[in-house]
Amino acid sequence: MSQSAKRVVLVSRPVGEPKPTDFRIEEYATPAPGPGEVLLRTIWLSLDPYMRGRMSDGPSYAQPVPIGGVMEGGTVSEVIASNNPGFAKGDLVLSRAGWQTHAISDGKGLGKIDPKIARISTAVGVLGMPGFTAYAGLLEIGKPQEGETGVVAAATGPVGSAVGQIANLRGARSVGVAGGPDKVRALTEEFGFAAALDHRSPDFRDQLAEATPDGIDVYFENVGGAVWQAVLPLLNNFARVPVSGLVAQYNAAGPGDGTDRLPATMRAILSKSLTVRGFINYDLAADHYAAFLREVGAGIADGRIRYREDFVDGLEQASEAFIGMLEGRNFGKLIVRVDGGSKP
Amino acid sequence: MSQSAKRVVLVSRPVGEPKPTDFRIEEYATPAPGPGEVLLRTIWLSLDPYMRGRMSDGPSYAQPVPIGGVMEGGTVSEVIASNNPGFAKGDLVLSRAGWQTHAISDGKGLGKIDPKIARISTAVGVLGMPGFTAYAGLLEIGKPQEGETGVVAAATGPVGSAVGQIANLRGARSVGVAGGPDKVRALTEEFGFAAALDHRSPDFRDQLAEATPDGIDVYFENVGGAVWQAVLPLLNNFARVPVSGLVAQYNAAGPGDGTDRLPATMRAILSKSLTVRGFINYDLAADHYAAFLREVGAGIADGRIRYREDFVDGLEQASEAFIGMLEGRNFGKLIVRVDGGSKP
Repeated sequence: MSQSAKRVVLVSRPVGEPKPTDFRIEEYATPAPGPGEVLLRTIWLSLDPYMRGRMSDGPSYAQPVPIGGVMEGGTVSEVIASNNPGFAKGDLVLSRAGWQTHAISDGKGLGKIDPKIARISTAVGVLGMPGFTAYAGLLEIGKPQEGETGVVAAATGPVGSAVGQIANLRGARSVGVAGGPDKVRALTEEFGFAAALDHRSPDFRDQLAEATPDGIDVYFENVGGAVWQAVLPLLNNFARVPVSGLVAQYNAAGPGDGTDRLPATMRAILSKSLTVRGFINYDLAADHYAAFLREVGAGIADGRIRYREDFVDGLEQASEAFIGMLEGRNFGKLIVRVDGGSKP
Repeated sequence: MSQSAKRVVLVSRPVGEPKPTDFRIEEYATPAPGPGEVLLRTIWLSLDPYMRGRMSDGPSYAQPVPIGGVMEGGTVSEVIASNNPGFAKGDLVLSRAGWQTHAISDGKGLGKIDPKIARISTAVGVLGMPGFTAYAGLLEIGKPQEGETGVVAAATGPVGSAVGQIANLRGARSVGVAGGPDKVRALTEEFGFAAALDHRSPDFRDQLAEATPDGIDVYFENVGGAVWQAVLPLLNNFARVPVSGLVAQYNAAGPGDGTDRLPATMRAILSKSLTVRGFINYDLAADHYAAFLREVGAGIADGRIRYREDFVDGLEQASEAFIGMLEGRNFGKLIVRVDGGSKP
């Protein structure tokens, strides 16, 4: 217990894209658990787009990380010391320990992970928050029907790939958008999308129109920006748009090109009777979480739901990997092997 | 039947605000009904904001009025000759006869009006399309709950005044926005709004914040533009926004002030889990029309639902009255007395 622990703290609130100097890695003495507490060792740290929001102090559904505070994040952790009768040394748990090697918990909010269901890193991926975000938003708001067309961007990511595959399981036709030829290829070859497009193509808009000859009935919005502009004219009457993330906007700091794009969006909402609805995954847990575990767990087991993970080694690499993710440089669910984690 | 009939046709598609020269009044020979047809005499012609949309040929949920075509519109008409066994001379009907003194109909889509329920002009107002738009959008999408706060603009108009009163009947607290002191006064004194504001006040935003100390749970969007910008920061988590009209946008032709307001709206949709949903009243008829007639009919009969009508005399005045309505110059439901109609 005398070994040194490490953590990543927020140094400054970025305007626009985060820089490496917005983060600092610190050493601290490994804490000891008090009465009723457990000591956790982080195995896997999840990196997710929502964390960009936590770095800013604008209006949000959640409090920002304080300056000097540890960056927030979900982890797969191991209980290495326990004064809590609910947990034994060696237990694997899903935790919100953040960007650090060790953390103390009173046990509240920890979820035990059964390593027999799937590899444990999926607890922060396809079987965790991203997978559930896809599942709940798609079924509660998107409501894909047999024969309809669904579109999702960042489609090789942990949310997008689940959206496409779950829509397929409902009989819809999934069209995926990603950046770069390798990702685009993976969408059809690995994840079963009916069509896949590169949003960097100069004729992306035309390609999207061609790939959706019957229009778009469900657009799962997790990027915002240019993809939304391409999708908007293709949406069918009564289309549904779950809004789960706006990663393309998170880094936007300055003014745009002088065009106010709100009137066109509002006009489309009215003239096409669109439903545009934001959601936070945990608000939908009561209605959908049990079904999610059952259906997606079974889908992984029998191979109908696939996923891709992108591993980074060491907490020292977390900030750079996070910055890269906001630029789309990851390929699959981005996970940091923090300390003693081993690739499966 | 040999008397001359009159109609208003569309001469040109306005860019921005319609001008009187976009319309032309024409005389035509009163038509004679063929087999199975009826001849209608227009008593009341309804003027509504959606008609501005029909003058343009941009994307919409409905076909535009062709150049040279009769302006569309709902009417209260009298059957003055009938070759249709379903209708007798003297029957009063709700029709889509348009801006003209006489029309031929095969009887399809005509709805008989019972003059004993309420004065017949309400068939194009509080008991007609505007009232139903308010009722169905508010209950299907807005879902006001006991103790919540609802906001509506153009609140002395036929949609807005119904929205506020129906929300009140559901136990919500209605806040109305209108233009000018007379309208603002009517909102609290006549229609029972808990608070009323003038959107022309220089400190309108501050006033709206003061009038909604618990935030806004339902915003019934029927104007767009500046009111939406004032409402957005005050919306509570999980607020619902039925989008019924964007009259402040209908006339917008040129670029704005160079600010792209879409990112802030999308961010609010995400961070507050908002539901923003457009609708067309007739799509909600199957679920809500019968209940609407029952509840609003009873509300009018017992005085819990009030309404205001603004009458204009003669088809010659229709285009000017319509242009004025888009600027908010009417006070209550705008109706043209076309030919032989009499004020109640």
